[in-house]
Amino acid sequence: MQPVFGPQDREYAAELFEAVRRLSAARVGVTRPSYSETETAALDVIAGAAQEAGLATRLDPAANLVVELPGAPAERPGYWIGSHLDSVPEGGNYDGLAGVVAGLMCLAKAKRLGVAPPRPLAVIGLRGEESAWFGKPYLGSYALFGRLGARDLERRHRDTGRPLGEYLEAVGADVRRIAAGEPLVAPDSIAAYLELHIEQGPIMVAREAPLGVVTGIRGNLRHLAARCVGAAGHSGAVPRWLRKDAVFAYAELLMRLDENWQALNARGVDLVVTSGIVSTDPRQHSISRIPGEVSFSLEIRSQSLETLEAFYQLVLVECAGIEKSRGVRFDFGERVLSEPGPIDREWAARLRRICGALQVPYIDIPSGAGHDAAIFANEGVPAGMLFIRNDNGSHNPEEKMDLDDFLKGTEVLYHAVTAPPQAPR
Amino acid sequence: MQPVFGPQDREYAAELFEAVRRLSAARVGVTRPSYSETETAALDVIAGAAQEAGLATRLDPAANLVVELPGAPAERPGYWIGSHLDSVPEGGNYDGLAGVVAGLMCLAKAKRLGVAPPRPLAVIGLRGEESAWFGKPYLGSYALFGRLGARDLERRHRDTGRPLGEYLEAVGADVRRIAAGEPLVAPDSIAAYLELHIEQGPIMVAREAPLGVVTGIRGNLRHLAARCVGAAGHSGAVPRWLRKDAVFAYAELLMRLDENWQALNARGVDLVVTSGIVSTDPRQHSISRIPGEVSFSLEIRSQSLETLEAFYQLVLVECAGIEKSRGVRFDFGERVLSEPGPIDREWAARLRRICGALQVPYIDIPSGAGHDAAIFANEGVPAGMLFIRNDNGSHNPEEKMDLDDFLKGTEVLYHAVTAPPQAPR
Repeated sequence: MQPVFGPQDREYAAELFEAVRRLSAARVGVTRPSYSETETAALDVIAGAAQEAGLATRLDPAANLVVELPGAPAERPGYWIGSHLDSVPEGGNYDGLAGVVAGLMCLAKAKRLGVAPPRPLAVIGLRGEESAWFGKPYLGSYALFGRLGARDLERRHRDTGRPLGEYLEAVGADVRRIAAGEPLVAPDSIAAYLELHIEQGPIMVAREAPLGVVTGIRGNLRHLAARCVGAAGHSGAVPRWLRKDAVFAYAELLMRLDENWQALNARGVDLVVTSGIVSTDPRQHSISRIPGEVSFSLEIRSQSLETLEAFYQLVLVECAGIEKSRGVRFDFGERVLSEPGPIDREWAARLRRICGALQVPYIDIPSGAGHDAAIFANEGVPAGMLFIRNDNGSHNPEEKMDLDDFLKGTEVLYHAVTAPPQAPR
Repeated sequence: MQPVFGPQDREYAAELFEAVRRLSAARVGVTRPSYSETETAALDVIAGAAQEAGLATRLDPAANLVVELPGAPAERPGYWIGSHLDSVPEGGNYDGLAGVVAGLMCLAKAKRLGVAPPRPLAVIGLRGEESAWFGKPYLGSYALFGRLGARDLERRHRDTGRPLGEYLEAVGADVRRIAAGEPLVAPDSIAAYLELHIEQGPIMVAREAPLGVVTGIRGNLRHLAARCVGAAGHSGAVPRWLRKDAVFAYAELLMRLDENWQALNARGVDLVVTSGIVSTDPRQHSISRIPGEVSFSLEIRSQSLETLEAFYQLVLVECAGIEKSRGVRFDFGERVLSEPGPIDREWAARLRRICGALQVPYIDIPSGAGHDAAIFANEGVPAGMLFIRNDNGSHNPEEKMDLDDFLKGTEVLYHAVTAPPQAPR
């Protein structure tokens, strides 16, 4: 097995990354809101590059970008390479974009080398993966499989307050079919969904592995807009025993969860807990006012659905205890579940074999973050994922992927979709 | 001793309260920002009513309103009745305003009855008492005693970001003298400072006492803009042991302080702790991002300066421990101390005697909240305070003072400033 990507491809990738970074530059990092004009501009850059490389492009009925290699045998189920083009607010440039650029480079290389792949080959540039904007992730792939409903289209944008349906309409999606929960693609028309993504944790840097073969994807259970409600009061005039301080109650909830989390981790249970958003009401809060209310988000992640549900029960039990002792009330609002995603064993094995054949060091790694791949997997599409080493995590502007590592991953992806499948060992 | 106030005075008070409420009505409750046009409008209502009652009015060099009874013996030190006219955001109408209206009614009654008080009589309607706006309380009385300096004039307004100096200038204060720390009044020209104020805690309602004679005023130690800084990261991809979660660290700080607070209260130590403001950065936070930073306020109150300083040391020690275990850094920013205020024993005794003579039930009560009276007291002015029963606390729109209770307090105040001093028992 010979590498097909060289220094020119590295430069090509750098230029594409820079073009998208420029159009989405924020105060720090990049901001590409889901279903925004900035996201569309990113799709356009990829589509333009695809067309220049002689590839076909179109939008699917959910307004995701589809790039196809012309001349492939259309009757067989195809290989899809995908990832997303949106970002969190002031996030990093590579989260999502790297997978789309890698897919584009694979197809462009196949076209240039005149390779006839065994199946149809497509890249999908998904929209709306980040939950930061509408409180629910994977909107682009959910829409594709008819798993967004009319209620989801009422979700409000975090900044503008306008509903998701309007945003979908604006980018040209078929809102009627999406609202009806109609599948826009048949899962059995997809032979495999492959996603390359930067690692979003610190493990691969620590283990000095440029590539990671993903073995499973964590699901999550979320409350975007939870509240704790107590009673406001003058901070100097109410003694401790008469207080209903919402912020102290919230702090106690976090510390109780922290204790349980620590205990479960010690027993080897896969779990992380995050309250990424917390705020007293700026219209009411003051240094000299006992906070009568605090808003916060709560997220639990695990590779096991059972763990998610069990820990969730524990959250409810702890809240009931705190409500009683502190005279407050927790109001969790809507619960959003993203199921853990199974990774296809055959595809993981194939990715490992190709890494071996190309002599690229890799490790097996579970995906702590959720990915569109999980949505495809839960629809029955065999899914594989490849992580690229990346320092400083993601969802922040400090992410740091080495383009040499990226090229190694793209190389593995290219061979995975163009080589005829080998017999399992 | 005979009551001088009747049903007509009750109506007069109701009208004055309503006039000021109307001009400062907010989404809920009232908003009278320090040194705002709304605060000035409240001063104007009081000044107008004073002039109609035949009283003299002027602004002092710090732009506080002064109402005087004409014809008093100017050479002797005077009795001042005062309170403030600003409010917290969306606060209650009576907090501050009640004391100014009570003072005005005392002077108007003295004028109408042709009473010649033993000393000059003045009401002072102070500005800028609430720390909500510039992060420091008692600005109006500090300015009066030359205790605001050039640095304080740089304090930024919480909404507009413009400096206090500009605001002082706009209302006609003598900014040059204030910046130079020049006293605008001689403390020994004030024989006593008396303040009537609604109770801001739940004690008098519980004890069924319409009036409270204040025995001491809690001071406080504050950090308006503290921060905890950790490291942001993807919420799914960083295991617990590698996290530097700023919000969990903040929650742990509150719970450690809560434990110590509980223990100190059990030992009879006077203390309350509040974190009225907390927020992750809306430009960066997201449900799927480990919060790398959180901003918060911290306030400690006690009647004892020693307790304040001792608990503050404990805060620093706890922070150091959390910084070590959680990989975060606490940055407290500016520390603001308001010293506890001693109440004059003679005046407290006199107020008790008058309550007794008028057969009005009262209790002795410490003031949990700080008041301008503490500033006067710390300048050596004998200070007395009278609390009016009030349900639902203050600093929120639900405060509820009965006008009958208010009239009782005004009655006591009237006799305190017009009757010749009695010999102590």
